[in-house]
Amino acid sequence: MSESLSPFRRVKVTRVGRAADRGREDLAAAEEPLEVRLHGKPFAVIMRTPGEDRELAAGFLLSEEVIRSSDDLGAVEHCRHPDHPDVHNIVDVYLVGDLAARVSEHLEQRRNILTSSSCGLCGRLTIDSLRCRLAPLAYTETLNRDVVAALPRTLRARQAIFDETGGLHAAGLFTLEGECRRSAEDVGRHNAVDKVIGAMLFEDCVPLQGHALAVSGRASYEIVQKAWFAGIPIVCAISAPSSLAIELAEEAGITLLGFVRDGGFNLYTHPSRIGGV
Amino acid sequence: MSESLSPFRRVKVTRVGRAADRGREDLAAAEEPLEVRLHGKPFAVIMRTPGEDRELAAGFLLSEEVIRSSDDLGAVEHCRHPDHPDVHNIVDVYLVGDLAARVSEHLEQRRNILTSSSCGLCGRLTIDSLRCRLAPLAYTETLNRDVVAALPRTLRARQAIFDETGGLHAAGLFTLEGECRRSAEDVGRHNAVDKVIGAMLFEDCVPLQGHALAVSGRASYEIVQKAWFAGIPIVCAISAPSSLAIELAEEAGITLLGFVRDGGFNLYTHPSRIGGV
Repeated sequence: MSESLSPFRRVKVTRVGRAADRGREDLAAAEEPLEVRLHGKPFAVIMRTPGEDRELAAGFLLSEEVIRSSDDLGAVEHCRHPDHPDVHNIVDVYLVGDLAARVSEHLEQRRNILTSSSCGLCGRLTIDSLRCRLAPLAYTETLNRDVVAALPRTLRARQAIFDETGGLHAAGLFTLEGECRRSAEDVGRHNAVDKVIGAMLFEDCVPLQGHALAVSGRASYEIVQKAWFAGIPIVCAISAPSSLAIELAEEAGITLLGFVRDGGFNLYTHPSRIGGV
Repeated sequence: MSESLSPFRRVKVTRVGRAADRGREDLAAAEEPLEVRLHGKPFAVIMRTPGEDRELAAGFLLSEEVIRSSDDLGAVEHCRHPDHPDVHNIVDVYLVGDLAARVSEHLEQRRNILTSSSCGLCGRLTIDSLRCRLAPLAYTETLNRDVVAALPRTLRARQAIFDETGGLHAAGLFTLEGECRRSAEDVGRHNAVDKVIGAMLFEDCVPLQGHALAVSGRASYEIVQKAWFAGIPIVCAISAPSSLAIELAEEAGITLLGFVRDGGFNLYTHPSRIGGV
């Protein structure tokens, strides 16, 4: 694996006030732009940690409402131009079916996002408008309290890049038995979630009823929104949720837990999905 | 102060595995969209914690290269429409001098960002292109090692909202003597930095030679970029820097420190500004 594809970068460091024998080199979490193209045309640029780029692109397009399921995805691949040194930073996505004909519409719509009347994130989304387009999740599965308490340790054990760099967010998708089906790390908290959801899209497993999403940091509005688009009924954050995350989870029918640590947690919305409480 | 202007929101909570006597209400960090307008036209929407909205808008416009200094800023104010309930979420910015004539150009340019050839963040900025427009910071001031070691505690002591919610990023601007001139908290790490820099813009103190920026979390590419635009020669992150943050700091002539905690730190770039090492 060339350095440009690795999630690490070797960096020089002077350690002050610490054991000098740890050397003068260190690993930093890599951060590079990923350009997502639709049918060869630039759609978005995401600052991300290289790795699982195809999954990131797919998950991102689900959250952006460009695709609705894996059925809409054709080829998703890194550009292949031997002359171009940065091709590992470009993923080209092709849509199929009726969406293929709407690509130019999506590109134009994205171009207009920032100049349209703004009443929410990026001028498009408010809780109200999301509510008009998505039904609240009504799955009735239950995640046991003991399984919740064990999620942080399992997620942490899978943070290989964090172990080396101390610098990454993680997201993991868990079954109701507490098995981690997929996890991802990224310098961007939203990217880690997109990578996990994108991987499930490729496995044709979206919507993800019967699963819980765990994130290593806080739960923002966007994390809950991504869970809603992917049909994940339970979101567990190791740290605090924001007010808007709680409001959106309430509307979305999503069970939102925060401060999942030290064997306990706070339960903010739709508590009936947590067993043993 | 009405709830909509407060950085807190009261939320209902069920505590599991924790002292039940802490009650069934909690405070969450507020997260709401702020629309930044240029001369009445939508320019951007930022998800932020309410408070210091004018500072956030000013700092954001500096990082976006819409303004270059406080001289370019005319009125910066919340919209005042008694009929409109969300006016606290809209800040309108007026530019003065030659920039006033360029407002429509900025709005059009922003509209084109996403469709232009992409080679970096949001398709505009790469380290190379930044380097062409900005000179590396060449200030020779020195921040003593002992002052660095004390920054985290000082910043933490000013995190009033974090104390209540456990859910916010913080940024602080420090003198070389370790005095905190200004700090801010926000659900978004970049917003906290923009709020601090915006406040300094209003005090006409940008560029900020003779200062260090401390951030409560990681140092990303964008944090270093914002410091460069504001002329801050030293950036201290409590957590890890990303690889691109280190590369950009090297180019920018910015001294970048990471893992500033427990009395020690890692020094990544331009170490000559740190005394006592």
